[in-house]
Amino acid sequence: MNLLWRLVSPKFGPQVCKYSKRSLKSVKFPFGSSNSLLHGIHVFHCPDEVGIVAKLSDCIASRGGNILTADVFVPQDNNVFYSRSEFTFDPARWPRGEMDEDFFKLSKMFNAMKSVVRVPEIDPKYKIAVLVSKQDHCLVDLWHRWQNGRLPVDITSVISNHDRGPDAHVIRLLERHGIPYYYLPTSMGKKREVEILDLVHDTDFLVLARYMQVFSAEFLKSYGKDIINIHHGLLPSFKGGSPSKQAFEAGVKLIGATSHFVSEVLDAGPIIEQMVERVTHRDNLQSFIQKSEDLEKQCLVKAIKSYCELRVLPYEKDKTVVF
Amino acid sequence: MNLLWRLVSPKFGPQVCKYSKRSLKSVKFPFGSSNSLLHGIHVFHCPDEVGIVAKLSDCIASRGGNILTADVFVPQDNNVFYSRSEFTFDPARWPRGEMDEDFFKLSKMFNAMKSVVRVPEIDPKYKIAVLVSKQDHCLVDLWHRWQNGRLPVDITSVISNHDRGPDAHVIRLLERHGIPYYYLPTSMGKKREVEILDLVHDTDFLVLARYMQVFSAEFLKSYGKDIINIHHGLLPSFKGGSPSKQAFEAGVKLIGATSHFVSEVLDAGPIIEQMVERVTHRDNLQSFIQKSEDLEKQCLVKAIKSYCELRVLPYEKDKTVVF
Amino acid sequence: MNLLWRLVSPKFGPQVCKYSKRSLKSVKFPFGSSNSLLHGIHVFHCPDEVGIVAKLSDCIASRGGNILTADVFVPQDNNVFYSRSEFTFDPARWPRGEMDEDFFKLSKMFNAMKSVVRVPEIDPKYKIAVLVSKQDHCLVDLWHRWQNGRLPVDITSVISNHDRGPDAHVIRLLERHGIPYYYLPTSMGKKREVEILDLVHDTDFLVLARYMQVFSAEFLKSYGKDIINIHHGLLPSFKGGSPSKQAFEAGVKLIGATSHFVSEVLDAGPIIEQMVERVTHRDNLQSFIQKSEDLEKQCLVKAIKSYCELRVLPYEKDKTVVF
Amino acid sequence: MNLLWRLVSPKFGPQVCKYSKRSLKSVKFPFGSSNSLLHGIHVFHCPDEVGIVAKLSDCIASRGGNILTADVFVPQDNNVFYSRSEFTFDPARWPRGEMDEDFFKLSKMFNAMKSVVRVPEIDPKYKIAVLVSKQDHCLVDLWHRWQNGRLPVDITSVISNHDRGPDAHVIRLLERHGIPYYYLPTSMGKKREVEILDLVHDTDFLVLARYMQVFSAEFLKSYGKDIINIHHGLLPSFKGGSPSKQAFEAGVKLIGATSHFVSEVLDAGPIIEQMVERVTHRDNLQSFIQKSEDLEKQCLVKAIKSYCELRVLPYEKDKTVVF
Repeated sequence: MNLLWRLVSPKFGPQVCKYSKRSLKSVKFPFGSSNSLLHGIHVFHCPDEVGIVAKLSDCIASRGGNILTADVFVPQDNNVFYSRSEFTFDPARWPRGEMDEDFFKLSKMFNAMKSVVRVPEIDPKYKIAVLVSKQDHCLVDLWHRWQNGRLPVDITSVISNHDRGPDAHVIRLLERHGIPYYYLPTSMGKKREVEILDLVHDTDFLVLARYMQVFSAEFLKSYGKDIINIHHGLLPSFKGGSPSKQAFEAGVKLIGATSHFVSEVLDAGPIIEQMVERVTHRDNLQSFIQKSEDLEKQCLVKAIKSYCELRVLPYEKDKTVVF
Repeated sequence: MNLLWRLVSPKFGPQVCKYSKRSLKSVKFPFGSSNSLLHGIHVFHCPDEVGIVAKLSDCIASRGGNILTADVFVPQDNNVFYSRSEFTFDPARWPRGEMDEDFFKLSKMFNAMKSVVRVPEIDPKYKIAVLVSKQDHCLVDLWHRWQNGRLPVDITSVISNHDRGPDAHVIRLLERHGIPYYYLPTSMGKKREVEILDLVHDTDFLVLARYMQVFSAEFLKSYGKDIINIHHGLLPSFKGGSPSKQAFEAGVKLIGATSHFVSEVLDAGPIIEQMVERVTHRDNLQSFIQKSEDLEKQCLVKAIKSYCELRVLPYEKDKTVVF
Repeated sequence: MNLLWRLVSPKFGPQVCKYSKRSLKSVKFPFGSSNSLLHGIHVFHCPDEVGIVAKLSDCIASRGGNILTADVFVPQDNNVFYSRSEFTFDPARWPRGEMDEDFFKLSKMFNAMKSVVRVPEIDPKYKIAVLVSKQDHCLVDLWHRWQNGRLPVDITSVISNHDRGPDAHVIRLLERHGIPYYYLPTSMGKKREVEILDLVHDTDFLVLARYMQVFSAEFLKSYGKDIINIHHGLLPSFKGGSPSKQAFEAGVKLIGATSHFVSEVLDAGPIIEQMVERVTHRDNLQSFIQKSEDLEKQCLVKAIKSYCELRVLPYEKDKTVVF
Repeated sequence: MNLLWRLVSPKFGPQVCKYSKRSLKSVKFPFGSSNSLLHGIHVFHCPDEVGIVAKLSDCIASRGGNILTADVFVPQDNNVFYSRSEFTFDPARWPRGEMDEDFFKLSKMFNAMKSVVRVPEIDPKYKIAVLVSKQDHCLVDLWHRWQNGRLPVDITSVISNHDRGPDAHVIRLLERHGIPYYYLPTSMGKKREVEILDLVHDTDFLVLARYMQVFSAEFLKSYGKDIINIHHGLLPSFKGGSPSKQAFEAGVKLIGATSHFVSEVLDAGPIIEQMVERVTHRDNLQSFIQKSEDLEKQCLVKAIKSYCELRVLPYEKDKTVVF
């Protein structure tokens, strides 16, 4: 499956962080002529050869763009190249459409596997759908950060296979902001994948915020874009159901959470972020679960933010680069 | 197998920590008559019933002993009782032999599975043998802490299945302190277990400080006492050989080390301590290994110290209580 | 000031944790006669002498109470004693009122500085008021945990010196649950302390969830009960205003949050809990503040939960015991 | 004072890490002609302007050098530029002397405040002197890592103001490797700075591994190169003497260590690295000190390694960039 496929598509979307807008106000304009500097992000992944950084940075500089951060990674023995740059630019000197063209030419020149550029202030935000089952702590946390302007996405819908009833707190939260909530009960043979596909076809990626249902290979292929999952265990330990219970029974002294891309193999996709917390013999299964919930929230939101800021790239078969 | 068997035996050993001696000087004598207070530690594990704490603490108080710390743990649904107490006492009022008898009576009264008392200032230190293969970072670290009085054990011997040659740094370190070093090369069918048993029969427990050899069930049974191992992976992930390589290939974002008791099943005995450290895509296998080494040293020494201070008890099938 | 004054008063309050109720269902009844076992918590602080544990545990056992956890701490050189016990008991054999009397007798016998007993299932919950200024992330987090049954208190009111307007999200959240919100604007000479006292006189303790106003010694004395504050810096560094800015300017590589009791000296009361997170040169003041917010929420809620579970006791002049 | 002065000097030296040699063997040669690729590191700090990355990377590419990692940092509002690159190159195509000249031209072009290049395999190792007082845990740790090839420096001497006697363990360790140990007792008015200067004049930087003596401004000026100190407290808290005691008395729940550059103001120079560990009411001053020692060792060695790998640069008045 083409992980991170969506990152290749050069056509989208803004507003990496609401707060980056404010912070950009204070960026000094270093080369005259205008005050309306914008902030661009570019990621690039291609076979390695001499001179890629020189070409990329020359492209930016030739349009008057000023690199603020750059990160290059060339793993040993792999002959592949990864980079991520942030830069300010004057849209009068470098119109958004021409920027796409310039980077597209470079991606052709280097046979790039990935090349994405985003200008958060003017590109549309990423659109996501959030899928949940019974546990809604991750959903509520995402909602709250989104509502505070700390999550740089548009939530187009929430889909659940668990019946909450119309008066559930989380449903009222969503309603107030006009986010539709769909209840699609699933069962063994009935994954409702066609209906889900229909609901999420216009999203940029999916977030499984404790959705206890495994997607088929067909679904992954049809959707074709990235899906980020939060697993309440420290993968590759404790795959599958009830990871807290598995951890409790294994007598571990540290519990964890893992955010990762969904692949066809259950709980085996590339890991984006992991977090741990200490437990002792005094912890019981319930306190394992409760301690885990705080980890899950933090671990999921960190992965989503990194993804939206174009920091996450696929690496080898089952790994990630997280710039 | 009877894990922690040695803890049951009531006959041994002193000097929990070299420094505890100094700190004891400042213990105020709370009930007159003498200045020579000693410091005792008692652990107890038995079926739960009403009144155990009352009986244990009354036993200590009736001899003029003053409890400094106490920790009681009764897990839900299990009907078992665990406790650990530290207390000062006047050996003139409570001779060491009578203390053993007093606690032995209590262990009979409550059908105790474990009952151990230690008076570090006057009991003999625990005797250990350290087994290593090629990597000696854990051994050197143990040696250095021991030499600084920070490891409350006597190292009776070091046994290795890796040929270092007579001029190896670590061998000279050991020689200077008169610790014998035995080179016992092993191979597939030749584990040298009889010779090892002969060398370690008078130890209180064994430490596998990166010993890359699995003991047979017969060895474990014949030795009959506890064996602490350090595994350079976050168990139950990455059991067996090359855990750093397994972790590297799994693309984890956190690596770990686990100290645990050895059982008949490889890398599956009760976990005593676990530690983690962050890794990124920039880490390669070598940096995984190097970061892991620092974790291993800390994780192993913490387990040994906890064990010597009678903090570690078996719990359920494969867990530990670590007071 | 008498820190932790409220803990001495023996008359209150239930429901340490909503979930503890459920977990109690599974407690095996170990001595027959009834199925309605309750769960008690007792903390004790007195001058040290021989036999305190024996008397306390005998008191519990003599009423058929079964100790589940016990923790005793006698610091070196201080001649003071601290303990905390949890036990199950049959209210038919040990009526709540007699329990108070029994422990009261013990507190007389040992001249206790503190002796508190709580039976969460039947005692009233602690009542708190939450004070906030502009930042409401801690308040919203408290509200959400409270609403999920994870915060074992009754929030009687929220008081703010910052004008939110009637449509603020947090005000609507509170309204829905009938929690009154009072807006009391403060200024240099006008701290509104008399009005605040009037609003909070029936609370058990106060929570300052980012309340940017220093109380007078008179207020502390008049209120007479504990006040828990969250400071967004790693005390004793960065006292006073804008601790994130202070930390940013100091070039630290770790930022932190501290929950502590309020004393007459600004940001100098006994520390209950501290947490840290890593920062780098890439973090700016805004990311310092945002990273800090997650720490603050966790650090405050942990302190409140520990306090409600009777885990926090004053120790020496400016320290705490946190069992 | 000119912090990090030494980094400007373009003339030195090799062997960033003993192990990097080995890892380089596996670097694929991407452009033909030779198998003897070397590994260079370049850091650069200058006023910001458009096109710096383009020029630097073009310089490397034009000589056939292949960038493996690059890191660029341009802080908001500061108009300064920082970068660090690692690259492979063929010394036949880019002789070491010409590399110095090429980067020197760039440093002129951009009015660089810092520009340093190192080729660890062929440049001389950094030479350091280690200064210690009574505590030698950091010195022994440095020695052990150095002896294992994990510390990429040459230790030219150890200087102490504490009398160990000739039979001290650490002195014998040093002797075996021919590292001279100088005992220079100091007193209030007698800092022995002239003698120290004489002993360290040919070093590249100094390491204060628990040296309890404050250098004068004259000494710092005369030495003129960087000095790295380890402070056993979490700066800016607990400056000056006995930081563990200060922390203990403040009742903190986290203790820390800080490695930093020495400036004229005591314990106020730019922070390079900080680490923390949890403490509780059960910890006494001695356990504070012991827990701190492990932190100090790790925190100091991490700072030294980062410095030798050209990762540490001065930033603003009292901060560091740590790439």
